Amino acid sequence: RGDCDRNLSMQCCDRPKNTNVRISLPAVCFVWQIVMIILFGIFIRYDQESDAHWAEYRKFQNISSDIENDFYFRYPSFQDVHVMIFVGFGFLMTFLKRYSFSAVGFNFLIAAFGLQWALLMQGWFQSLDPMDGKIKISMESLINADFCVASCLIAYGAVLGKLSPVQLMVMTLFGITLYAVDEFIILNLIHARDAGGSMVIHTFGAYYGLSISWMLYRPNLDQSKRLNGSVYHSDVFAMIGTLFLWMFWPSFNSAITDHGDGQHRAAINTYLALASTVLTTVAISSLSQKTGKLDMVHIQNSTLAGGVAVGTAAEFMLMPYGSLIIGFCCGIISTLGYIYITPFMEKYLKIQDTCGIHNLHAMPGVIGGIVGAVTAAAASEGVYGKAGLINTFDFTGKWKDMVPSRQGGHQAAGLCIALCFGVGGGIIVGCILRMPIWGDAPDDNCFDDELYWELPEDEESIPPILEDNNHMRNRDV
Amino acid sequence: RGDCDRNLSMQCCDRPKNTNVRISLPAVCFVWQIVMIILFGIFIRYDQESDAHWAEYRKFQNISSDIENDFYFRYPSFQDVHVMIFVGFGFLMTFLKRYSFSAVGFNFLIAAFGLQWALLMQGWFQSLDPMDGKIKISMESLINADFCVASCLIAYGAVLGKLSPVQLMVMTLFGITLYAVDEFIILNLIHARDAGGSMVIHTFGAYYGLSISWMLYRPNLDQSKRLNGSVYHSDVFAMIGTLFLWMFWPSFNSAITDHGDGQHRAAINTYLALASTVLTTVAISSLSQKTGKLDMVHIQNSTLAGGVAVGTAAEFMLMPYGSLIIGFCCGIISTLGYIYITPFMEKYLKIQDTCGIHNLHAMPGVIGGIVGAVTAAAASEGVYGKAGLINTFDFTGKWKDMVPSRQGGHQAAGLCIALCFGVGGGIIVGCILRMPIWGDAPDDNCFDDELYWELPEDEESIPPILEDNNHMRNRDV
Amino acid sequence: RGDCDRNLSMQCCDRPKNTNVRISLPAVCFVWQIVMIILFGIFIRYDQESDAHWAEYRKFQNISSDIENDFYFRYPSFQDVHVMIFVGFGFLMTFLKRYSFSAVGFNFLIAAFGLQWALLMQGWFQSLDPMDGKIKISMESLINADFCVASCLIAYGAVLGKLSPVQLMVMTLFGITLYAVDEFIILNLIHARDAGGSMVIHTFGAYYGLSISWMLYRPNLDQSKRLNGSVYHSDVFAMIGTLFLWMFWPSFNSAITDHGDGQHRAAINTYLALASTVLTTVAISSLSQKTGKLDMVHIQNSTLAGGVAVGTAAEFMLMPYGSLIIGFCCGIISTLGYIYITPFMEKYLKIQDTCGIHNLHAMPGVIGGIVGAVTAAAASEGVYGKAGLINTFDFTGKWKDMVPSRQGGHQAAGLCIALCFGVGGGIIVGCILRMPIWGDAPDDNCFDDELYWELPEDEESIPPILEDNNHMRNRDV
Repeated sequence: RGDCDRNLSMQCCDRPKNTNVRISLPAVCFVWQIVMIILFGIFIRYDQESDAHWAEYRKFQNISSDIENDFYFRYPSFQDVHVMIFVGFGFLMTFLKRYSFSAVGFNFLIAAFGLQWALLMQGWFQSLDPMDGKIKISMESLINADFCVASCLIAYGAVLGKLSPVQLMVMTLFGITLYAVDEFIILNLIHARDAGGSMVIHTFGAYYGLSISWMLYRPNLDQSKRLNGSVYHSDVFAMIGTLFLWMFWPSFNSAITDHGDGQHRAAINTYLALASTVLTTVAISSLSQKTGKLDMVHIQNSTLAGGVAVGTAAEFMLMPYGSLIIGFCCGIISTLGYIYITPFMEKYLKIQDTCGIHNLHAMPGVIGGIVGAVTAAAASEGVYGKAGLINTFDFTGKWKDMVPSRQGGHQAAGLCIALCFGVGGGIIVGCILRMPIWGDAPDDNCFDDELYWELPEDEESIPPILEDNNHMRNRDV
Repeated sequence: RGDCDRNLSMQCCDRPKNTNVRISLPAVCFVWQIVMIILFGIFIRYDQESDAHWAEYRKFQNISSDIENDFYFRYPSFQDVHVMIFVGFGFLMTFLKRYSFSAVGFNFLIAAFGLQWALLMQGWFQSLDPMDGKIKISMESLINADFCVASCLIAYGAVLGKLSPVQLMVMTLFGITLYAVDEFIILNLIHARDAGGSMVIHTFGAYYGLSISWMLYRPNLDQSKRLNGSVYHSDVFAMIGTLFLWMFWPSFNSAITDHGDGQHRAAINTYLALASTVLTTVAISSLSQKTGKLDMVHIQNSTLAGGVAVGTAAEFMLMPYGSLIIGFCCGIISTLGYIYITPFMEKYLKIQDTCGIHNLHAMPGVIGGIVGAVTAAAASEGVYGKAGLINTFDFTGKWKDMVPSRQGGHQAAGLCIALCFGVGGGIIVGCILRMPIWGDAPDDNCFDDELYWELPEDEESIPPILEDNNHMRNRDV
Repeated sequence: RGDCDRNLSMQCCDRPKNTNVRISLPAVCFVWQIVMIILFGIFIRYDQESDAHWAEYRKFQNISSDIENDFYFRYPSFQDVHVMIFVGFGFLMTFLKRYSFSAVGFNFLIAAFGLQWALLMQGWFQSLDPMDGKIKISMESLINADFCVASCLIAYGAVLGKLSPVQLMVMTLFGITLYAVDEFIILNLIHARDAGGSMVIHTFGAYYGLSISWMLYRPNLDQSKRLNGSVYHSDVFAMIGTLFLWMFWPSFNSAITDHGDGQHRAAINTYLALASTVLTTVAISSLSQKTGKLDMVHIQNSTLAGGVAVGTAAEFMLMPYGSLIIGFCCGIISTLGYIYITPFMEKYLKIQDTCGIHNLHAMPGVIGGIVGAVTAAAASEGVYGKAGLINTFDFTGKWKDMVPSRQGGHQAAGLCIALCFGVGGGIIVGCILRMPIWGDAPDDNCFDDELYWELPEDEESIPPILEDNNHMRNRDV
């Protein structure tokens, strides 16, 4: 009878879709990985701190100890960022009752591909050695690659449950490419500062994903609404993701800031902003229900908004109370977003946002960009000290005559560019993804692992021991 | 019929309770967070290692490299401690079959509030700058705030499932306050050493929670006993908490010890004590059952007792075998506590201890205090070296004439003070929490997420695809 | 009726087994732990970097700052390795539907015992101080102990679900002993390099486990096949293990490499190899199914093969593209192993390999050994620099006349020795474990937690509130 139901449903569905990715997925993985190997072979080498010549370089540069290798400044933060990318984003998206394999598995796949492509793209734009035409990578490159990947995983949140793995790979390929250009313009050409990536990671990534979701609008998505929700233990799994993101966000925002006080201050600011966000999220979540009950969706997502919003300004002299204020506001705005804006966007703007990234990344990212612009414009030698101002805003070389007020303008310009790249890029890539060749899910079967995964039997009870083993129909492993 | 049952049950329940926290919870969160922002604005600033003036300070102090910023000594440990607080404590308490949302969610809420209040309270007592009346915070302050929060999360373990989130916030407010006073007396006034907080964190926190639980004794709690237990996968979730606590405990005990050998030794001692505890826990757990089966409650909790007990003495020259002996004893005592003492306390002393914190924190904490006193009293220049003795016990400034034997006495006094603060504070706070305004659970509905959380539908199976979508009754997200 | 079925099944089972470990398990735990304490008391002391004399030693050695204590070079990596051992291996094995308690619990037990014994065994062979006959331990010793334990946890993967905890303890005791001898021969006597342990950890551990499994072949194991598989959420739990192993593998391979560029380069190489593996694993997994669906078994396991294979050569100048190539190949080979070789081995070679360690550790380990030999033989001063070559391959002291080509030969010899120790040791230990005294599971009840754990009731639903509490039959905690 189940099969019969399914057949009927297939008939009334206007376009029966083929979700077989047996040719396309292996092809994409193999071809792209081989291309990566070739390009890495041509372009990528170790930099002087990870090369075996370090011993000579160290002596030459009069560096007193191995501990001053950048590895020891960055590695703990790198590992925390790595956990955020794979466990944080991966598990945060396991909240759907039957999409946990895809959430954590496709997150794994696109992150593993994305970081390789990011090393190349970011390398070409930012660290190509003019002497030999090679990209020299170090720990900082790996962190930047993880950052770049984060923007695509944010975009994944908007389309969660609706795209095939092949589409996700294509989305990642273009996302990384756009990110690298975007980042080059914002950080290098207009010299905006963006330590935690409120603009380049969150604003760009969120609008990129939302635009793709808008282009791929599914009017009949409510045919899958039985699967678009959580069960008790899938919500607990999602809390693993939430907490690892929340705990390690100070590492995210401080991972590539200046050695010394820069990393120290960015970690403190982020820690405080996040703490403050939790309280206002709980407050609004409780207020929004008739009996004051809390909603897991808010706790899983909005508690993180403070970390997003403090991203750009994390290394600035925000002051501890400033961080708390940012977190305070973002907890409110993000939770209200889940209550009012997400349903509004779905109904009137035709944007289906599975994870609510508009509330967690887009709005807080824009707020973060604005905060960055304002605090940069307000910076003064009194607060930062002469050397501190130069270090924090990198007023050196070509930018040595920059002043804080103009820096604020550049920050604002950076925010606009991130927005444009996100929306524009998303629309173009959305067009590409609308082609009917990618094997995406039919409207009545979204949010379902069954399309792309061999699933184990469903029941959880232990079958009794049978006399006749031939009668058993359990999966053979 | 279920509703009917529920009505009947409500009728026979002597005092029908109102668990609506829609006014009180948002009010507490908003008001307290705003107060935090104001107090942070008045009092809290960056210290010289996280301030933008660091570059100038560094030059002035002749510090050769940025790597000597305290950030690089403490940050990896800080992140591990942070994981223990949020994932460790949070998931350890998810073992109840229907209280996982509250376990991990309220843990998150009270920790996020507690750490802000702790920064203020500990700052006023310990790091108020006499020059400008400001508290200067750094990475070490954040670690101390996390430590302070740990004591309240321990207390949460005793009352798990029985208090409303508003009560938990009140309990945390007072808990942090008491902790800061207690810590000031123990560490500063009487100059006891307590690196891993056996006394100030575990002994204080556990007796604070147990006293509150005693004051809030529920004679009819067995009406909720259907929910006071685990299911298979909730026990697996709890193991996530156990393991992250266990693995990162070396970071906990070494996070604020002296640079260099102090941190190194504390980590080694804790690692060894914990390893030893696992074996004796398994042994006693197996012995306690007729067929030698293991009990998950013991594995989840008692395996951690060695880390508690080695806390005070972690930085001393305990010797590796000394650490093993401490772990050995604590595994036995803690497991026996679960088997004999917890039921005894519930039956005769009217102390209902949901997580068994008496076995995991109270007894091992007291043992840790005693071990600390004994090993301090036995310290000698032969073992520590002259400089080592001074560094380890901080026999400088006002305390430069201190001798180990007297230090042992001070340690013992510290333990007594922690006990008094815990019991006394708990009784007073328990009185406050008995007021009938807090929205706590009725006796027949404890350990139930349903009171404070919007729950997803229960079934886990995928409903078949229906011809007629109107017939579906699934939750709409 | 279920009981009746069970009785029937017990009758047709040739040898009814006694799985009671109430005497043996506590006895083993207590006796061995007491022996550990005694041996630690006799042999183990702090080394100069963790001893309180460090302050004097530092002044004497003219070390400029506490940050140059080896603790700060190693501790972040140590904690990551620790997470891999306890959460990584533990949760990776929770994939079975009813063996999660044993997977994570016995992993915990044998690791906690193993690391103590490893400190002693490795100490006797490698760091016995000739002056006073003591073993001096430091952070590096703890990392090495964790490494040593890893080899036994790998072996556990092969026999998962089939051995009693007592057998596992015996297997670990001998495994650690063999490891220490093996490692001494490979690293010290023949001076092979093996930073990430492709040979000493993975090859040895995997063949040790496979040989034991071969010796303990159970022809009637398909009587338990109803339990030899996963359910939906057990696969999600297993992904926690997979991801923590995957993310922290760069720390594993770089934990004990040279300060500075050695650690830096090992982390980069491992990061890249792992990323590449993910793509080819997905490709082969998808290709292997008629409709292109992915298999969770492959994603959970084969994605890690690149980390194994890059182990030996991680610190060499593999070049980034070299790392990608290794990962590329290993993803393919490992996934094909799961599809073709594991069933073949079970059917024709009588090796039952529950977790497929042959595909995840044995084959990639051997590949890693070969890669190490080839890259060592190909090393040149042009690529490494004069000082770099000496540092990387440790051509100092007794080995100062070594040349790369000969080093390659030594590497190959090391691989052979690891293989021999694994197979030979496994056969001997397998004989010991065949004795009928260990309380292992009957063939029709393998993969079942029920034998060794008190299990909570199975149902997950919340029973309704009853009028009459006497009727309740829920477990009382």
